[in-house]
Amino acid sequence: MARQTVRHEEGAIYEFTPELEPITEVEPGTELTIETRDSLDGAVQSDADVIESIPDEVNAATGPIAVAGATPGDVLKVEIEAIRVTEPAGRVITIDGFGLLDGEPDIAAPKSRMTPVDGETLSFGDLEIPIDPVIGTIGVAPQEESYTTLVPHDHGGNLDTTDITAGNTVYFPIFQPGGQLAMGDCKAAMADGEMCGTGSEIATDIDISVDLIESPAVSLQRPLVETPNAWKTLASAETMEDASKLANQDAIGLLAAEHDFEPTEAYMFSSLVGGLEISQVVDPLVTVRNAIPKTYLADPL
Amino acid sequence: MARQTVRHEEGAIYEFTPELEPITEVEPGTELTIETRDSLDGAVQSDADVIESIPDEVNAATGPIAVAGATPGDVLKVEIEAIRVTEPAGRVITIDGFGLLDGEPDIAAPKSRMTPVDGETLSFGDLEIPIDPVIGTIGVAPQEESYTTLVPHDHGGNLDTTDITAGNTVYFPIFQPGGQLAMGDCKAAMADGEMCGTGSEIATDIDISVDLIESPAVSLQRPLVETPNAWKTLASAETMEDASKLANQDAIGLLAAEHDFEPTEAYMFSSLVGGLEISQVVDPLVTVRNAIPKTYLADPL
Repeated sequence: MARQTVRHEEGAIYEFTPELEPITEVEPGTELTIETRDSLDGAVQSDADVIESIPDEVNAATGPIAVAGATPGDVLKVEIEAIRVTEPAGRVITIDGFGLLDGEPDIAAPKSRMTPVDGETLSFGDLEIPIDPVIGTIGVAPQEESYTTLVPHDHGGNLDTTDITAGNTVYFPIFQPGGQLAMGDCKAAMADGEMCGTGSEIATDIDISVDLIESPAVSLQRPLVETPNAWKTLASAETMEDASKLANQDAIGLLAAEHDFEPTEAYMFSSLVGGLEISQVVDPLVTVRNAIPKTYLADPL
Repeated sequence: MARQTVRHEEGAIYEFTPELEPITEVEPGTELTIETRDSLDGAVQSDADVIESIPDEVNAATGPIAVAGATPGDVLKVEIEAIRVTEPAGRVITIDGFGLLDGEPDIAAPKSRMTPVDGETLSFGDLEIPIDPVIGTIGVAPQEESYTTLVPHDHGGNLDTTDITAGNTVYFPIFQPGGQLAMGDCKAAMADGEMCGTGSEIATDIDISVDLIESPAVSLQRPLVETPNAWKTLASAETMEDASKLANQDAIGLLAAEHDFEPTEAYMFSSLVGGLEISQVVDPLVTVRNAIPKTYLADPL
């Protein structure tokens, strides 16, 4: 089956709602290339282009893409095969009212800084950073509430997680028929935390394959990421403490199911291996992961 | 100069105070072996030994050790050469009122679980975990306030950070003459986050060498860790958000000094490489790191 391309112009959303209408439907097992624009939709093309306040529409997510047969309770498996940057520069910006150090006296906003791409690196002044693209916003139609593409929650959305990158696989709970996958808001590089509020925001082509897991071994409540070495639960909440609790509870559930642990045993075990990781601390809800090495968690789904 | 041993019986503290009196004084460049007891001072020797509430005295830190010539404004460099576990088992425990999931209905406290050591691994039931010891509590005499060894702050203390391990170097600001280094509360293994409130708590012998950096290139406010690949600022605060801010501000300061960046430039750059990492989320103050790869930060001190 030839790889199918989904172009940004065919459809993009700024809100994940329970009622999303797909722009295309694909069979499980389909390989796709998703074209995405940068999170600011081209508004920043030089250091002089600054963003005064967060736009009403930001983080356009190309899609939604329905997966045939996807039914609430199933799990959507999205294997990220490659992410190619498709413009000659990304941009890092500060916006007044946004970012970890927003309002600190020595931090200026709005500011923009172009980060030109040259082959496999991008530059920030004299410094060169290897390009390591991340998908910032990726998710499915939520259960009940709607969430703009600035917000992460149980459906995914603006997760801003460095592990959502080529070579890894993301799993989403399916809340609505067809799942309704959409993604965008890529970064050429991003730190864990995304402190200033952005990575190097850039347009990309993303190669993925999508598949379904029917009757998963556990009931997935939130996104899950598989890296070559670990499984990582992903949770978003008002505070990092609350996000940590959810991510840890999800990890405990997976450990308990695989090892027939009591919850307290799984909790103790989770305190010995892998651990909590910060995804981002700047979006309206913040996101934390709990990593469990595959040595201790072979195949949770 | 022969390696000098500091035995737990010679002295151990349960509070870092500005007025600490040393049990010994060593010259810069001295190699030491520090004997430590487990954080619970031997109270848990079987799964039946439970801890009803946090003891008034916990996390005994062997020391204090004065370093000759250490003067406020200098930096104390502690190179961790090796950490050897010195008892046949560690223990993981839950205590009512403590831990990330304290009070959750399916989490039981108090509970204790011995984790026997066999060569290079420890066991948790059928699962084997490689021993990778961490120093939980390490610090110097603080500037003004006193902190029990349960609390981390700018002087160090109960940092519970997996990077404080063999092969890495920890740097502390010197607030008081002699510095007054003390350490203990080791774990045979610990997850980032230390979610249940402990790792596998265990007695150890720690090989370190201590040295002074006089007139450091930057004024160090809080601990800093050097790993083979990165420099990591370490900050403790009431919330993870506040700890993240402090850790990021410290990282920005180091980046700005090395690259002659404006603070906003350094902030933007910090949002592209390395990033925020969780140390622990369970102590009275929580601890977050900001890692900067050495590629971008060669020698901040």
